[in-house]
Amino acid sequence: MSAVDHSLDSFGDATASATRVTPGNALRPEDIAIQQEKPNDAVARYAVRLGDDALILAQRLSHWISRGPELEEDIALGNIALDQLGHARSFLSYAALAWDKTEDDLAYFREEEEFRSLHMVEQPNGDFAATIVRQLVISIYQHLLYTALLESSDETIAAISAKAVKEVDYHRDHAIMWTLRLGLGTEESARRMRDALDNLWPYVGEIFEDEALHAELGDAGVAPSTLRAAWDEEFGAVLADAELSVPTVPYAMARGRRGEHSEHLGFILAEMQVLARKHPGATW
Amino acid sequence: MSAVDHSLDSFGDATASATRVTPGNALRPEDIAIQQEKPNDAVARYAVRLGDDALILAQRLSHWISRGPELEEDIALGNIALDQLGHARSFLSYAALAWDKTEDDLAYFREEEEFRSLHMVEQPNGDFAATIVRQLVISIYQHLLYTALLESSDETIAAISAKAVKEVDYHRDHAIMWTLRLGLGTEESARRMRDALDNLWPYVGEIFEDEALHAELGDAGVAPSTLRAAWDEEFGAVLADAELSVPTVPYAMARGRRGEHSEHLGFILAEMQVLARKHPGATW
Repeated sequence: MSAVDHSLDSFGDATASATRVTPGNALRPEDIAIQQEKPNDAVARYAVRLGDDALILAQRLSHWISRGPELEEDIALGNIALDQLGHARSFLSYAALAWDKTEDDLAYFREEEEFRSLHMVEQPNGDFAATIVRQLVISIYQHLLYTALLESSDETIAAISAKAVKEVDYHRDHAIMWTLRLGLGTEESARRMRDALDNLWPYVGEIFEDEALHAELGDAGVAPSTLRAAWDEEFGAVLADAELSVPTVPYAMARGRRGEHSEHLGFILAEMQVLARKHPGATW
Repeated sequence: MSAVDHSLDSFGDATASATRVTPGNALRPEDIAIQQEKPNDAVARYAVRLGDDALILAQRLSHWISRGPELEEDIALGNIALDQLGHARSFLSYAALAWDKTEDDLAYFREEEEFRSLHMVEQPNGDFAATIVRQLVISIYQHLLYTALLESSDETIAAISAKAVKEVDYHRDHAIMWTLRLGLGTEESARRMRDALDNLWPYVGEIFEDEALHAELGDAGVAPSTLRAAWDEEFGAVLADAELSVPTVPYAMARGRRGEHSEHLGFILAEMQVLARKHPGATW
């Protein structure tokens, strides 16, 4: 079934409801899916990386809805999950054009080894501290990344990033606020933050590894290594304010960008894909 | 930890992001939780009923995020889930004042027999058609209910309803649009809608059953039986437009308002409550 008359934009003005999309955010995944300009192959592969990170993170974060220790925080993390899912839709819709596919084809009908997401985003939610550390790592990275991509020579990548950067700015604020609160909170909350940092630090290295793809992209993309210095400075400053230390544990061998994933991704995909695969092309 | 400096309202103006709450929606659960006026016992028990319906429905709907057959629709249902969770927080925050408790106490530390939700909202998501029929039933009911509660003599109930009715209006639009699309779609989609209607109809009766409580409430609440005629008219009209029929199957014995639940609620609560109970009072 077509989605033509199912635009959430038609839900009106920007008041009150999470079900309403603010008008003026013209670039919707539905618009991207029908645009004339297709990405070249390198840009499409790049968009898959950005989309997959957002998609898998959204899947992880959505588990907090109604399942956390505080209803208030469940809503905040749920909203962040939906923002990320929105970014995923945009990037995957654009990538899919290159191969005459749809966002749903890419989300639901690729195999595990075809996903290009980082190991960081597939790490389990763990306790609340672990989710916050993962959010701090990713939101500072995504904020730097989307800011740099505002200058992308690919207009669609730049436009998606322009919308995403505003939302990720709030995700970063949220993660920083909780990092400070937990780091400076009780002895137990600080201990859990230290544990989470040690457990997740091994997956930081992969985020900033350049691939041959980044050279192919030219001015359309950003080599992640160029974001590292700014990330280190910002991440380190937040931890210092929270009286936490940057871990010294070594990096893991993480090759998510090559389709080599941890055992976690298989479970995530099984859950995410089962319905779509059971009824391909249907609307239930 | 206090929620004082963690207001999502501080996240700024009403553009673009699901993480931002529109300013001007002054009545937040955090505000309700610290207000001076406590509900009387009858109003508190009434608020628990409205809050529990929204909470359990939110828990059911949140499962669609990243798990449906279309990413676009996952976001729509995810947003509806978060709206419902917001309504649940407001009603439960208010109810909790009567017993010197918090919304989280009520959500996470009540036993199954203390929940007052309808059997309808605990019904499994089933296929997409089943979720849409459940949404159509509940959103038409909630829209009538919150509209009537705008006139509640209890100012907090009226204020919560004023915010909720705007959001539920969109939930209803969403459910109607899908009912038409599936009812008038393929033979398979219409068949699934008919099955969903037959399966869910037994739980419609309970929604409109009056309790002794409703007499105690006076002008603070609405006796659900008074909403039935308008609900029948609206629900029947949508089905007629969708070329579907109102089922003739009998009602089930459903006594959720007395704390007698189906086997489904235990599983929902187990998932929802495990983290909060494992670490009571903590923020992970």
